[in-house]
Amino acid sequence: MLRHEEDVKVFALNSNPELAQEIVEALGIKAGNCSVKRFSDGEIHMNVEESIRGCDTYLVQSIAGSGNDYLMELLIMIDALKRASAKTVNVVLPYYGYARQDRKTGPRQPITAKLIANMLERAGATRVLTVDLHANQIEGFFNIPVDQVSGIPILAEYFENKNLDDIIVVAPDNSSALRARKLGSLLDVPIALIDRRSYDTGEPSTVNVIGDVEGKTAIIIDDMIDTGRNVAFTSRILEEHGVKEVYATFTHAVLSGNATEEIAESNIKEVVVTNTIALPESDDMDKITVLSMAPLLAKAIQVVQEKLSISTIR
Amino acid sequence: MLRHEEDVKVFALNSNPELAQEIVEALGIKAGNCSVKRFSDGEIHMNVEESIRGCDTYLVQSIAGSGNDYLMELLIMIDALKRASAKTVNVVLPYYGYARQDRKTGPRQPITAKLIANMLERAGATRVLTVDLHANQIEGFFNIPVDQVSGIPILAEYFENKNLDDIIVVAPDNSSALRARKLGSLLDVPIALIDRRSYDTGEPSTVNVIGDVEGKTAIIIDDMIDTGRNVAFTSRILEEHGVKEVYATFTHAVLSGNATEEIAESNIKEVVVTNTIALPESDDMDKITVLSMAPLLAKAIQVVQEKLSISTIR
Amino acid sequence: MLRHEEDVKVFALNSNPELAQEIVEALGIKAGNCSVKRFSDGEIHMNVEESIRGCDTYLVQSIAGSGNDYLMELLIMIDALKRASAKTVNVVLPYYGYARQDRKTGPRQPITAKLIANMLERAGATRVLTVDLHANQIEGFFNIPVDQVSGIPILAEYFENKNLDDIIVVAPDNSSALRARKLGSLLDVPIALIDRRSYDTGEPSTVNVIGDVEGKTAIIIDDMIDTGRNVAFTSRILEEHGVKEVYATFTHAVLSGNATEEIAESNIKEVVVTNTIALPESDDMDKITVLSMAPLLAKAIQVVQEKLSISTIR
Amino acid sequence: MLRHEEDVKVFALNSNPELAQEIVEALGIKAGNCSVKRFSDGEIHMNVEESIRGCDTYLVQSIAGSGNDYLMELLIMIDALKRASAKTVNVVLPYYGYARQDRKTGPRQPITAKLIANMLERAGATRVLTVDLHANQIEGFFNIPVDQVSGIPILAEYFENKNLDDIIVVAPDNSSALRARKLGSLLDVPIALIDRRSYDTGEPSTVNVIGDVEGKTAIIIDDMIDTGRNVAFTSRILEEHGVKEVYATFTHAVLSGNATEEIAESNIKEVVVTNTIALPESDDMDKITVLSMAPLLAKAIQVVQEKLSISTIR
Amino acid sequence: MLRHEEDVKVFALNSNPELAQEIVEALGIKAGNCSVKRFSDGEIHMNVEESIRGCDTYLVQSIAGSGNDYLMELLIMIDALKRASAKTVNVVLPYYGYARQDRKTGPRQPITAKLIANMLERAGATRVLTVDLHANQIEGFFNIPVDQVSGIPILAEYFENKNLDDIIVVAPDNSSALRARKLGSLLDVPIALIDRRSYDTGEPSTVNVIGDVEGKTAIIIDDMIDTGRNVAFTSRILEEHGVKEVYATFTHAVLSGNATEEIAESNIKEVVVTNTIALPESDDMDKITVLSMAPLLAKAIQVVQEKLSISTIR
Amino acid sequence: MLRHEEDVKVFALNSNPELAQEIVEALGIKAGNCSVKRFSDGEIHMNVEESIRGCDTYLVQSIAGSGNDYLMELLIMIDALKRASAKTVNVVLPYYGYARQDRKTGPRQPITAKLIANMLERAGATRVLTVDLHANQIEGFFNIPVDQVSGIPILAEYFENKNLDDIIVVAPDNSSALRARKLGSLLDVPIALIDRRSYDTGEPSTVNVIGDVEGKTAIIIDDMIDTGRNVAFTSRILEEHGVKEVYATFTHAVLSGNATEEIAESNIKEVVVTNTIALPESDDMDKITVLSMAPLLAKAIQVVQEKLSISTIR
Repeated sequence: MLRHEEDVKVFALNSNPELAQEIVEALGIKAGNCSVKRFSDGEIHMNVEESIRGCDTYLVQSIAGSGNDYLMELLIMIDALKRASAKTVNVVLPYYGYARQDRKTGPRQPITAKLIANMLERAGATRVLTVDLHANQIEGFFNIPVDQVSGIPILAEYFENKNLDDIIVVAPDNSSALRARKLGSLLDVPIALIDRRSYDTGEPSTVNVIGDVEGKTAIIIDDMIDTGRNVAFTSRILEEHGVKEVYATFTHAVLSGNATEEIAESNIKEVVVTNTIALPESDDMDKITVLSMAPLLAKAIQVVQEKLSISTIR
Repeated sequence: MLRHEEDVKVFALNSNPELAQEIVEALGIKAGNCSVKRFSDGEIHMNVEESIRGCDTYLVQSIAGSGNDYLMELLIMIDALKRASAKTVNVVLPYYGYARQDRKTGPRQPITAKLIANMLERAGATRVLTVDLHANQIEGFFNIPVDQVSGIPILAEYFENKNLDDIIVVAPDNSSALRARKLGSLLDVPIALIDRRSYDTGEPSTVNVIGDVEGKTAIIIDDMIDTGRNVAFTSRILEEHGVKEVYATFTHAVLSGNATEEIAESNIKEVVVTNTIALPESDDMDKITVLSMAPLLAKAIQVVQEKLSISTIR
Repeated sequence: MLRHEEDVKVFALNSNPELAQEIVEALGIKAGNCSVKRFSDGEIHMNVEESIRGCDTYLVQSIAGSGNDYLMELLIMIDALKRASAKTVNVVLPYYGYARQDRKTGPRQPITAKLIANMLERAGATRVLTVDLHANQIEGFFNIPVDQVSGIPILAEYFENKNLDDIIVVAPDNSSALRARKLGSLLDVPIALIDRRSYDTGEPSTVNVIGDVEGKTAIIIDDMIDTGRNVAFTSRILEEHGVKEVYATFTHAVLSGNATEEIAESNIKEVVVTNTIALPESDDMDKITVLSMAPLLAKAIQVVQEKLSISTIR
Repeated sequence: MLRHEEDVKVFALNSNPELAQEIVEALGIKAGNCSVKRFSDGEIHMNVEESIRGCDTYLVQSIAGSGNDYLMELLIMIDALKRASAKTVNVVLPYYGYARQDRKTGPRQPITAKLIANMLERAGATRVLTVDLHANQIEGFFNIPVDQVSGIPILAEYFENKNLDDIIVVAPDNSSALRARKLGSLLDVPIALIDRRSYDTGEPSTVNVIGDVEGKTAIIIDDMIDTGRNVAFTSRILEEHGVKEVYATFTHAVLSGNATEEIAESNIKEVVVTNTIALPESDDMDKITVLSMAPLLAKAIQVVQEKLSISTIR
Repeated sequence: MLRHEEDVKVFALNSNPELAQEIVEALGIKAGNCSVKRFSDGEIHMNVEESIRGCDTYLVQSIAGSGNDYLMELLIMIDALKRASAKTVNVVLPYYGYARQDRKTGPRQPITAKLIANMLERAGATRVLTVDLHANQIEGFFNIPVDQVSGIPILAEYFENKNLDDIIVVAPDNSSALRARKLGSLLDVPIALIDRRSYDTGEPSTVNVIGDVEGKTAIIIDDMIDTGRNVAFTSRILEEHGVKEVYATFTHAVLSGNATEEIAESNIKEVVVTNTIALPESDDMDKITVLSMAPLLAKAIQVVQEKLSISTIR
Repeated sequence: MLRHEEDVKVFALNSNPELAQEIVEALGIKAGNCSVKRFSDGEIHMNVEESIRGCDTYLVQSIAGSGNDYLMELLIMIDALKRASAKTVNVVLPYYGYARQDRKTGPRQPITAKLIANMLERAGATRVLTVDLHANQIEGFFNIPVDQVSGIPILAEYFENKNLDDIIVVAPDNSSALRARKLGSLLDVPIALIDRRSYDTGEPSTVNVIGDVEGKTAIIIDDMIDTGRNVAFTSRILEEHGVKEVYATFTHAVLSGNATEEIAESNIKEVVVTNTIALPESDDMDKITVLSMAPLLAKAIQVVQEKLSISTIR
């Protein structure tokens, strides 16, 4: 399916091998042959088992879970490919870790998302392909080309097929109204906003529901679900405001800490996510539906290789 | 007031000489002696009339109005100061032009806000001091330190002193709910959201008011007012939804095109802005109140020079 | 005419669309499809309307007239093409604005011509093609390849065809004797020099004519004509020294201020220039002859694309 | 003890807080106030709790144990300090992790030690202070100044004070003869070499003892002890060759896997190391003697601050 | 033999034209047409006499003999090729001069081997191909790919064909045991070590022979022979310890000062070197055997051009 | 005389130790203690014998004579000082070698003067102080500050004191009219131009004298005298045109090849130069007068250290 496939090598690193495998299958090629091991002291040891001189190389890695380890794997692999004379080193980052640290939130704060951009470029990456950045401005942290695809149409299509009645899309905080609008437009439904206010005085923060949610089927949307506490809380608030049923959907399923339990115990009916991050093994996955980004990412790689416009697929 | 003032030079470039003058007066020093002229063919000609070798230099310039010219003035001046052995070249950008181009909004779009960051750094800037960036992530476009101060507390204080009744702060689009929340918290009032939806099909875009605005005094807030059409339209919508009185407030008064007329002819009672951008001469300024950022910027410069934390003033 | 033309895109920016059009016609291709607009506040808005991924791109722009705007257009377009994965970004600069600021002429002066070189490289340009630089050393301001072609042979050929008698080529100041010699050699005629001396004391500067000009047909040559005052003055001086007839020729027709009137009112018989800069609309163009650089620039692009030596055409 | 101590901030990151504490005590100052935490998803969160604008900052961190996490902590902290306008960011790396990956050992291998150097510089480090690099050439991986101090004199002094008889220093492999010679010279004793040869054919590798070790007290020296298997094996070989008693000494105590058990069960009498790496909690530490590098590192920091030559202390 | 040979240009600079000629012959192509001359004042003047636009270019130059001149030739040629739009600029450095200055050996020492790496990269080199680096870590001084091949197998094969009896390979100092082991393994023989100790006290340095050399045929190996004094001295020591016959072998024949006389007058039977450095004209070359690296270097260039793995040939 | 002299170190490298010595004497300090030696194989070996941590360092070196060696000395010394934590590394280049290669003079030519600028910056130079650049545009090859002083006023003063009659300053070729005008203005005398024309056809090049030289005392001026052939030839031409007496003056006395003989045998009465380049030992120096640049260079260093404007002295 991919033209000149002998000059393209797609390598799966350790964060999300299933997704990487799906991508290479969708491309109709074999995964690049490499091994990533750890020495006894924890240091990463790479072996690229086939020549890549002059090839277009793709590294599939999400910076999630043991994110620092996976970032380091990625940087080391970029270094190895650059020194081995790869023609291009394309980083496929289904999940861009540390993306929430994209600005200073207080004095003397780092901007870690920018640091990562600098590290990738300095190591030798020549392009980045990523999914639903926490903020689109992160594209501007790079001087190399960044191609971004979105999982929201995939999520929207899933909900369309469910034929839910009287949907309202809910932005769970003040910074996600735009994302809610995007899903709202795809589903052709209205949106509501959870307005959160915190106090310096130590009072508990106040939460208002802005918009008319009563009697509706709510779909909470955000770019990622982390500990699950926030969405569970939001769901309860929505129930108190008369919502009939609550769904939640996210591109990135970080699911850290007790997230799966939080979801299991919440009043949320279903949580729909994509597989940008490898999901944890857990007994509490019943409510969680996972949709695959692999076809879209494979398509994006194909478009890049065939020198077409990525806008045709997003 | 400023210690070691002989080693600090603050230069006013051409975009906003009044603000620069206020800043140096607040600092208790004289403005640096430079001239910025245009040759007959439009090329910029700089003269720095006093030695700055080893000095901390500050350049006050907003990229607004003839923004490309002012940006070029700024870059040329940075080059001149760097070559003349300034110790530091601090760029004071009360208004960061092109900030809305901070991400790709379509295929093959530039990220001009990042380009400007690169240009400033490459020319030799060693620090940036700016006000209410369109997106905080722009801080991450830089590898040099960026200090950002906010005009919102100044705007809030002005409205507090007006003692308006039953205020609701209104975010004029889906991306400004967070800013509305910030002003709402300072004034201790609720917020509402104008939900905008555009269609690919060519239908006129739909606008919903989310939140309970009826009978209230609305304050529309955004980071900047440009043509004024949007805020005038929002104000009419709010009136249709039963709002009693509409105010609007912005840090940056771009006021391009017929903005002042739009405001004059609208149902907005008062537009409150700061002087980060030099205001146009116009007959239609009656409704426009301008608050000065100079004291805050002067304080910020002082803090930088005295090696204190800028968080103490923001 | 151009091989693999589907991989080559030549874009005309706003400074000189006629020249760009002539170039693409000479190449036998269509101009790249892009739009460059201004927002109401003056900010530049780019749209590249066709995919350029993997293409060799050429941007035709002169930094003249509203030079700062045109430079900014150019930088933004370079950024857009780089981020859209162009294979190469070739800047065709028929006129390199700010070239006269190529060294410090006093304390604390910028070197703006170098600043522009740095900006172009930092934005992502991979090659520059330009015409008759004010100083050839500007090539060394770049670390990327610079190809320079000369308009002087085109100007020389025009004068040869006129069959003027007893020509002397005149260098209008002490720094242009070498350029006068170049034209003199092509026409096989002697040269003279206008020796200018300025005084710190405030006395009017002195002008001597060095060389034997009496009874001859003078052709004044310089790289550019700006306000026209200098050449008009030189022409009068030559007349006072017994010159029979005065022509003047320049690669770059900046023609700022009242230049066309100056020429019209002078004793110069004809001013011969090229179209590196779009000429102003004016009633006073009778004496001005414009020769096209398009065939030479098209040839240069073709040579670059076909990996031949540009020395074959200059 | 340290002059101008208010302008110097020494921060302890998480890898080795005891060593950092000893260093600040030796300097007679308080540790810089920062917190380094992990979010639920594993991402690192930094807080620098005091202003460092204009200060010389030192970050004490070893890249060992959870080395990738500690490296990331270090890079994030450098980013934070740089953005907060630190005057200098000095990285104190008692143990330089990944130092063994300092060259390509096979096709398509990375050079991770160089990658780390690049990452530190790109993040904003302005100087490195480190201890007994695996190869001195790693200094050349940097373009910023690197000051290296050695733990070998400290180890040598300890053995001198033991008054052992008839010592021979043993290099445990072909690449450590130079280090053995250094210790041998400090103790004024001869050296021997364990010559190791591995086969491509799959035969077990051969080990020869070169030099006269019979009846002697052997001190095996290397820069680091990792799994302990190698030194335990070497010790048995030495015993087979008639060595009376075996000691072993290392600057860096990586002690990964079952290292402490290996040592406990070996015939080695005592293992002498320094505290460049925080030692694991273990029941098997009886034979392990730990000497502190803190006084030497504190002295080095003082020398840097007081602009003296570090050669006076090494 | 080389595919697409019209796009490959191999240029011989002045240090070692014979080797370069052998390489191009082995590749079955003609040497690139360039002249490198000196002006009367000693400045280097380059002329590349054929177009190289879009070509893969290779520069063969050893930094030996008049090393600074040859380095400068190389840098200038890289600059010329880069500016003339070469596709790649590959530096073939059979001998990497200044490689012994690869770390600081005292306070305020330069790391000249790193400086050279920086100069080559800054000038525009895109790849380095070199032979038996003094330390493999020098590969890490570069951010561009470095391919290294070894002359030791060639030297080993020569000795195998001599069928010497009872060989022992001798490392002439403490830092060369690893290299001795490499040759020892290829010849399947044991090694010995010359242990050198110098004193600060001014005593003459002591030399011990570690290992059993009596009655054997010794082959001293090191990466380079410079003045020859050291190997002559080592040879005498070995004779004193009962060695039967002494050979010596080196990849790089620097042979400075009276090296050839030292060898002629020594008890060494034969010195075997490669031609990475052009050998001096001398009457005392009888004992010196020179093996050619050209076939291996030609093979390496071919492998790079055909995008195969260089590991297949080393 | 120099304030804080303990923080300033001026090092004399090998090209011109007498000038360096004069400079330090004029500054009233001792020369920095360093040794620059050559190993037997020609490689340069540096030793900086005193601590320079935190110091402003100045390196006095001309790239002339064995220019490549002196350039390499300079680069190595910069590397050493940078790694030893010098505060600033100021390069004092009385003569900037390779300055005539400041543009491409033919296809595939290098721009070596730019290469040198890049090398100096990359090695770590933070400022350049130089004298009468071949072209002022070379300042723009640098991104670091360049301070340039001129020897022409010193030369002019010498001629003023000679009280010559009826002087005419002569530019020896078409590119030096501006320099002739500068000296002409200082002496308040007219200028003439030697117009040189070369032919592609192989005819001997033609030389015209433009301007009225008959019966006058000519002073030929250029920035440098190299082989002397050109000035000797020019002098004969002037004599043929009736000049009474010929002097010649140059800032830089390259004097390569048989230059001193050419001068001795010519009809030139006196050649006046400065000591930017160490003059060769020769019997033919009678006609050559050498003026010292040391006072001016010392003054420039003082001005830089005391943070004054260098324009006060030029």
